[in-house]
Amino acid sequence: MADAGNSTRHRVVIVGGGFGGMLCAQGLKTAQADVTLIDRRNFHLFQPLLYQVATGGLSPANIAAPLRSVLKYQANTRVLLGDVTDIDVAGKAVVLSDGSRVPFDSLVLATGSTHHYFGKDAEWGPIAPGLKTVEDATEIRRKILAAFEKAEKEPDASVRGRLLTFVVIGGGPTGVEMAGAISELSRETLKRDFRAIHPGAARVVLVEGQTRVLPTFHEKLSAKAGKALGEMGVEVWFDCHVTEVTPDHVTVTPDKGAEPKRIDTETVIWAAGVKASPLGKILAERLGAGVVADKGGRVPVGPDCTVAGHPEIFVIGDLASQVGAGGKPQPGVAPVAMQQGRYVAEAIKRRVKGLAPQAAFRYWDKGSLATIGRSRAVMESGRIRLWGYPAWLGWLFIHIMYLARFENRVLVLFQWFWNYVTRNRAARLITGEKSERLRKQQSD
Amino acid sequence: MADAGNSTRHRVVIVGGGFGGMLCAQGLKTAQADVTLIDRRNFHLFQPLLYQVATGGLSPANIAAPLRSVLKYQANTRVLLGDVTDIDVAGKAVVLSDGSRVPFDSLVLATGSTHHYFGKDAEWGPIAPGLKTVEDATEIRRKILAAFEKAEKEPDASVRGRLLTFVVIGGGPTGVEMAGAISELSRETLKRDFRAIHPGAARVVLVEGQTRVLPTFHEKLSAKAGKALGEMGVEVWFDCHVTEVTPDHVTVTPDKGAEPKRIDTETVIWAAGVKASPLGKILAERLGAGVVADKGGRVPVGPDCTVAGHPEIFVIGDLASQVGAGGKPQPGVAPVAMQQGRYVAEAIKRRVKGLAPQAAFRYWDKGSLATIGRSRAVMESGRIRLWGYPAWLGWLFIHIMYLARFENRVLVLFQWFWNYVTRNRAARLITGEKSERLRKQQSD
Repeated sequence: MADAGNSTRHRVVIVGGGFGGMLCAQGLKTAQADVTLIDRRNFHLFQPLLYQVATGGLSPANIAAPLRSVLKYQANTRVLLGDVTDIDVAGKAVVLSDGSRVPFDSLVLATGSTHHYFGKDAEWGPIAPGLKTVEDATEIRRKILAAFEKAEKEPDASVRGRLLTFVVIGGGPTGVEMAGAISELSRETLKRDFRAIHPGAARVVLVEGQTRVLPTFHEKLSAKAGKALGEMGVEVWFDCHVTEVTPDHVTVTPDKGAEPKRIDTETVIWAAGVKASPLGKILAERLGAGVVADKGGRVPVGPDCTVAGHPEIFVIGDLASQVGAGGKPQPGVAPVAMQQGRYVAEAIKRRVKGLAPQAAFRYWDKGSLATIGRSRAVMESGRIRLWGYPAWLGWLFIHIMYLARFENRVLVLFQWFWNYVTRNRAARLITGEKSERLRKQQSD
Repeated sequence: MADAGNSTRHRVVIVGGGFGGMLCAQGLKTAQADVTLIDRRNFHLFQPLLYQVATGGLSPANIAAPLRSVLKYQANTRVLLGDVTDIDVAGKAVVLSDGSRVPFDSLVLATGSTHHYFGKDAEWGPIAPGLKTVEDATEIRRKILAAFEKAEKEPDASVRGRLLTFVVIGGGPTGVEMAGAISELSRETLKRDFRAIHPGAARVVLVEGQTRVLPTFHEKLSAKAGKALGEMGVEVWFDCHVTEVTPDHVTVTPDKGAEPKRIDTETVIWAAGVKASPLGKILAERLGAGVVADKGGRVPVGPDCTVAGHPEIFVIGDLASQVGAGGKPQPGVAPVAMQQGRYVAEAIKRRVKGLAPQAAFRYWDKGSLATIGRSRAVMESGRIRLWGYPAWLGWLFIHIMYLARFENRVLVLFQWFWNYVTRNRAARLITGEKSERLRKQQSD
């Protein structure tokens, strides 16, 4: 297995170019191995800032880095644009949608997660887009901006009210960031843009199933975030679950026996749940022998990030279910994926060199961050808890630091500075499939 | 007509937020009139830089400005997102696709032009996209980048050759800019990105019907541009017309009786012809009485930019056919539309005030510019002719100057600087409808 010869070099296949997969590929730069990174998309996406694309603050390219660009000087690594649909565990190869096979000696699965509508994917998915891909973000941007445009033309006050109501489902970081950004968009950016409506009168409702927003943070920070949202005009509904999503309303049912309430809206954004990418279940089926994907479709892995009985198959990031320090499962956040990616790269390098394996993976939790809006954020790291302006500066600094390419850092920083000073959001374009179809119809 | 009273203010309707319509609206800022700017899109697009979006150098938002943003402090002006499908000349109103009517006292039509495939719109249009909208540009970007990705995976050398052949039809400024940019993309930006193919081996063919590229420029500059294209590895075929466009090849027929030649390619970009937007023909039909749209669908207007017999109806930009100085028709370029827009704004202001009309419109031709690539451009203004680096600097300066918003100027300038130094193009994202459909299929 540890043959470093040129003709029979160790073959590493990494599936997924997100935080875990990209960091793993980069970690293998000096490995005596042939690395293949497979992704359906040709770019790495910095998902934590996707909500800013969805609200017109940034362009998709600002938070994306072409995978080939990132890995261009890494001669032992090739990028393959493809869709892995199956894994031949015994034959040691992944199978692409076009039927072709890519053989491996070590396999790293890092395909992440997708939206989860609690069994209502088919019904709710098309109405309430989530925030995972560039297309999700531009579609949400289109829906939000089009709602204001329609309201401007709408003579019926009740329809206008429905158009100017935005419902965000889920009070985790993404939901809080989206609700805050929509509030700023309507109250500040669009303030003077319309003549018939007052965008500032828009209603933003955040629906959360628990008793506080940001439930993974300390209670004090949840309270600070809830207060900040309130100051920004966001209605936060606690202890509620969405029980119906239709094109013109959602029904929200309180957990404690109160009557279900109806909210008339045409713009619903899903930030409530994720499940592992379907490849998790496929791998578990192929492995058989006691490996069962959990309820969220995640594959259980040991402390070395491999699946039971197959030291050559690693699963990392949101696709993996791993018991961490203190017996708690690792959280589904980017830093876990990144650290696992680097850990697995090191593990493979040691194997290729014939060295003893390293110690079990330990997640170093540097802390958590969420931004609510302009100068408003919460941040915790160990016993340190910050909120308000200091936390917001910290958020800004850390996100800029982790943006993949230098150019993006400067572009994002400049746009943020500009948006901060002018309260403008320049990327407010209504583009995409539907407007395109309209154009095609009308162009002749 | 010149009633400046608040209750019965003069109503100006401008259709189209391109160069002509936007400048006209801005020129009416101080007018005692109620101005309505109607466009199908919510942004003004700086079309001269669209080819840079199509080749991954810039993001769409960098060359777009939300119309509401541009006009937010102009209290007498409202923006209406809508699609004008008819004009009620006698009733003085435009009709939108939803059946609603917008009444006017003065009407300015500025809906520009669209692609023209010489009667083959239905057959060739879907295969050979042109470059007019943001969606056109991202679709061309997707096609070009996907061709390289497919080639990287293709074992058959002849198919690989076909995938790595790019045909640009039309040797005007857009065609020259596209051909040059594709050449740079393949020879410089993507140089180290692939492992199985050499992007630099890509073939770029520019097909031009006349004996030289940039036929509206001085012959000397055409020769310079042709030479620069040659140095960049672009094959220029003169005196040729495309007679067949299919998904896997185009047929090019020389004008002088030689045999038709077949070029195997899957990526064809149309930069050959435009015709006026369909509203031109509709207006001509509604006017009747001797007003006939020309072959290109353009509406003849007098020296004051109005149509015969209707001093209240102005047509400007690519939608208008106007005889200029020396009996020559005004060229279909942005500066004509911009100057006509400002002229018409002034004309309307004078009418509202009851002043005598101004002198006939005169186009002040400040010159022409086209860029071929890095440090390569041609520029002429009167008797001054520049090429090479000085022309390229001039091109850069002028395009930055005319970009609609300050923020965009900085963003574009920075990205150009960065791309110049690194030869990188950061916005190389394969996005859009087709990848989205793939994602949806695979996500569960």
